[in-house]
Amino acid sequence: MSAGVFSEHGLFVCFEGGEGAGKSTQSRLLRDWLVERGQTVLLTFEPGDTGVGKELRRIVLDPATGELSDRTEALLYAADKAEHVDHVVLPALDRGEVVITDRYVDSTLAYQGAGRTLDVAEVEAVARWATGDLRPHLTVVLDLAPEAGLGRFDERDRIEGQSLEFHQRVRQGFLDLAAADPDHYVVLDARAPIDVISTAIRARLEPLLEHR
Amino acid sequence: MSAGVFSEHGLFVCFEGGEGAGKSTQSRLLRDWLVERGQTVLLTFEPGDTGVGKELRRIVLDPATGELSDRTEALLYAADKAEHVDHVVLPALDRGEVVITDRYVDSTLAYQGAGRTLDVAEVEAVARWATGDLRPHLTVVLDLAPEAGLGRFDERDRIEGQSLEFHQRVRQGFLDLAAADPDHYVVLDARAPIDVISTAIRARLEPLLEHR
Repeated sequence: MSAGVFSEHGLFVCFEGGEGAGKSTQSRLLRDWLVERGQTVLLTFEPGDTGVGKELRRIVLDPATGELSDRTEALLYAADKAEHVDHVVLPALDRGEVVITDRYVDSTLAYQGAGRTLDVAEVEAVARWATGDLRPHLTVVLDLAPEAGLGRFDERDRIEGQSLEFHQRVRQGFLDLAAADPDHYVVLDARAPIDVISTAIRARLEPLLEHR
Repeated sequence: MSAGVFSEHGLFVCFEGGEGAGKSTQSRLLRDWLVERGQTVLLTFEPGDTGVGKELRRIVLDPATGELSDRTEALLYAADKAEHVDHVVLPALDRGEVVITDRYVDSTLAYQGAGRTLDVAEVEAVARWATGDLRPHLTVVLDLAPEAGLGRFDERDRIEGQSLEFHQRVRQGFLDLAAADPDHYVVLDARAPIDVISTAIRARLEPLLEHR
């Protein structure tokens, strides 16, 4: 496995974490702050922020889809990523913009790894291939115990509806990824006040902005 | 790359070739002949012979889908294969049946290889992972010059609508795969009379049936 490819033009920031950790709130706040500082920002998400991605998102999340083979699910997520990177993320980075994505490769590694029926190294190889091994300059992990983040069971989608143990393994998955590469990760307690979290994210991003 | 996994229970036969080579006609004739001989036969195809596969087939073939990233397309085909192998092909083989599929991994290798924008070895690794590296006991390549097989241009789908040179490279791709593994392939001239082709296929399959 290579050490990854980093854009030399734009700045690529990723938010990761379990359900209800505040990824979309914090990614919007970061977007607003960056725009105020004169940056051009693209706020995006996975899965589903391309034409074909919308259809894939529906397939993987709709409970009506029923049982998918684990490999099928991993490959559908990878297809969404390939389309997202080639048609959304890379073009914006090449234009020198800041790209903020709500979920990326780490979600695949944490969720599929948590499933434990697939070899995580193989899933990673597929996801890295799908994305041309493009890595975020910074991944913000919003850490939260799943008991606190999951909504009512009868309102959960196909992934949210997995067991609590599954979501606990997902949480640990994100923490392990962050621990292995501290230069490119920051882990924040998602229970902290919103402005405390956003301040911490900005502090971490500041030097990355100055080096551009 | 491993040398592949072969079912020890059922018999797995694959038809490959370009458009209009007679794959569906010959696969049906083979099915009828095997049923007459008392075999239980499952006749299937790729892409699209599962619930999610139908949706993926529509996405990859519908001209309305427009431009897909090459990696996206490869991953969607791989997702179709993963679902097909896990939910259709392997269960039938495990029941001891004969499975005949119209297209399989070789189509991905020939068509994606023909595209030449992706590393074929990487596409193969993804397709082999998707299928658990399950291989047919026999692949029948129905060989035909693309000029003879393609229908009217304005009636072609996303793949059929590629250039003649593309389809010529696809043809060569199938021939190269067959040449590399003669024990598991038979190449037949698709311009021969239907009964000549079906007789040749049966002759090649006979010893495989006897060894079961």
